[in-house]
Amino acid sequence: MGILERTDADGIARLRMTAPERLNALSDAMLAALQDQIDRLMDDDTTRVVILSGEGRAFCAGHDLKEMQAGRQAEDGGAAYFKDLFDRCARVMRGLQTLPQPVIAQVHGIATAAGCQLVASADMAVAAEGTRFGVNGVNIGLFCSTPMVALTRNIPRKAAFEMLTTGRFVGTEEALRLGLINRAVPEADLAAESAELAETVAGKLGAAVRIGKRAFYDQAQMPLDQAYAYTGDVMVENMLLRDTDEGISAFLEKRDPDWQR
Amino acid sequence: MGILERTDADGIARLRMTAPERLNALSDAMLAALQDQIDRLMDDDTTRVVILSGEGRAFCAGHDLKEMQAGRQAEDGGAAYFKDLFDRCARVMRGLQTLPQPVIAQVHGIATAAGCQLVASADMAVAAEGTRFGVNGVNIGLFCSTPMVALTRNIPRKAAFEMLTTGRFVGTEEALRLGLINRAVPEADLAAESAELAETVAGKLGAAVRIGKRAFYDQAQMPLDQAYAYTGDVMVENMLLRDTDEGISAFLEKRDPDWQR
Amino acid sequence: MGILERTDADGIARLRMTAPERLNALSDAMLAALQDQIDRLMDDDTTRVVILSGEGRAFCAGHDLKEMQAGRQAEDGGAAYFKDLFDRCARVMRGLQTLPQPVIAQVHGIATAAGCQLVASADMAVAAEGTRFGVNGVNIGLFCSTPMVALTRNIPRKAAFEMLTTGRFVGTEEALRLGLINRAVPEADLAAESAELAETVAGKLGAAVRIGKRAFYDQAQMPLDQAYAYTGDVMVENMLLRDTDEGISAFLEKRDPDWQR
Repeated sequence: MGILERTDADGIARLRMTAPERLNALSDAMLAALQDQIDRLMDDDTTRVVILSGEGRAFCAGHDLKEMQAGRQAEDGGAAYFKDLFDRCARVMRGLQTLPQPVIAQVHGIATAAGCQLVASADMAVAAEGTRFGVNGVNIGLFCSTPMVALTRNIPRKAAFEMLTTGRFVGTEEALRLGLINRAVPEADLAAESAELAETVAGKLGAAVRIGKRAFYDQAQMPLDQAYAYTGDVMVENMLLRDTDEGISAFLEKRDPDWQR
Repeated sequence: MGILERTDADGIARLRMTAPERLNALSDAMLAALQDQIDRLMDDDTTRVVILSGEGRAFCAGHDLKEMQAGRQAEDGGAAYFKDLFDRCARVMRGLQTLPQPVIAQVHGIATAAGCQLVASADMAVAAEGTRFGVNGVNIGLFCSTPMVALTRNIPRKAAFEMLTTGRFVGTEEALRLGLINRAVPEADLAAESAELAETVAGKLGAAVRIGKRAFYDQAQMPLDQAYAYTGDVMVENMLLRDTDEGISAFLEKRDPDWQR
Repeated sequence: MGILERTDADGIARLRMTAPERLNALSDAMLAALQDQIDRLMDDDTTRVVILSGEGRAFCAGHDLKEMQAGRQAEDGGAAYFKDLFDRCARVMRGLQTLPQPVIAQVHGIATAAGCQLVASADMAVAAEGTRFGVNGVNIGLFCSTPMVALTRNIPRKAAFEMLTTGRFVGTEEALRLGLINRAVPEADLAAESAELAETVAGKLGAAVRIGKRAFYDQAQMPLDQAYAYTGDVMVENMLLRDTDEGISAFLEKRDPDWQR
């Protein structure tokens, strides 16, 4: 495992980036390890929720700049390497949304550039108070154009523009207000808080959550009429599940559902 | 009328769901009654604003689960009935937006699942303090996929995802912060507050409001260039109204407009 | 210059509307002056940031109503003039986004109708405490349909609908909460605050900011996959800049970058 540890318990898969000396940078190796886990989780019916966290003083500080600079040695000045790198990175980010399981980013310390993009790409995020979020590539001459894709789908336009062009960090209170995170808690409570959120979601009917997560992002990109036609079909599919029948019956009979799952 | 009472006064149509014993559930009968009123209002030039409220301890608790379960008796396990049901429901929700008159949801108690969707689908919402909003179908194994369409077009992404996958209720303060409602007032002031908002809108030039409401939702789905081309034409249409000429002249002459309406 | 003064210093172009007796209304002359400056700035490599402000007690009160009413004298009742007017106005508003330089609206007093649209169309906005924002054309029978295009791309849906149909003004605190502005400061500090923000952005690598601003609005209108494919290419283009190479190297070597710019 090396730089990405995975532990599984009670239907919750915890992915922990463990390259603290590099602030869990999204190196080629880290991206490959994340993609590998995403591939495994894609068909994993046992896992209901994923928590992504980082070891050390930062959640994730973005791309591995040393590795990127080394890429310039190629004959094309790095063009092909960079294109491949951003493709691989975007595949990981989109993968977090494509996964059938909800993904919770458990964030602390700093989350910058592609690290902030991980937070924005996760379905939900819980942060330790004092965490700093930034898309500060502009400070070194590299505008955070790919992180921007995820960021602008989370927070209001003018706040995103300011973060991107000034490199200013926002704290947890502001991140909460903007909609970048769901909750902020004292760092001592961070693991417990994200575990509690994960357990809540893991306690629901997995098939319904899977159906719903897929529909969540699909319908968001559709015009209203099409979104309703599509989600109407999704509701029918959901209604016809044996366990949904049981869930509704149990509710009407004021008893706990007997879900096969 | 039975389950949906309508009273008209001063250009304001009040629709009141009156099935308190079923928490104003969106039964086949309630959906039909709402659709019937929407059809009538579509060509109603007298009505300027619509207020939608509910009798009893809840605004609306969503679909009628007993009726839905009964639908399973059909040979196809309910597939055709469910498809038709969600189509009818979506037609009502889209109808609130398609109506030429602004629609204000006057909300109290609880607004859950398709009841929360009614709030999200209304143009504006005024709530009694203490109202609880939820898209909690996931608790019984039925993800709120159609309510999600309206909800995600009102509030930030991560907050919507959390509500949908955890079933957590949000109170009025949070609903206000998220953008799901416009105002929260003590329950004793609820009717007066929504009446005041309705009267304000009813006092405007009806033709301008109609033109504007239609354009509001249409342009929201267009790319920027197309949105400007479209609304430019809308502005010309608006400018050429006799009453708009009069409204602007009156403003310049510092007098009240003499609108024919 | 007359009604639109421009001063340039340290890579910052300050555009100041100077028709205070008409509340800096967007008359034919003002629109032409703004368009002229936008055209000049489009190919201006020296200017890094633009600040737009207004002289007198208002930032901008929208269209010039007297001029518009005079347009009705034409044989077609003004139809052709109005169409041309809204086209010219939309061209200015879109121009603020198309400009390669970030545009900061420095707002005070009142910003109404197309004046509020200027604020919404700018990339960022700094306001004096006490500023009032409104899309209040509905009060005189002219729904703010074109300002709505910019407004609804800045703030949540229900708040926008309320502002448009009630004509209600919002103050700086609410504008900040809604996302219409980035900062609110005492009026005495307004110029200094917007200057500080402009200087921060002007201090970044201009080529990276230009690349990023263009990508910001382009990707916002794309589906997720397309947005990532597009911004991936943008990142490669950015990485291959000589100054970005230098910027990253300088960061890794803990020294200031030696940018040719």
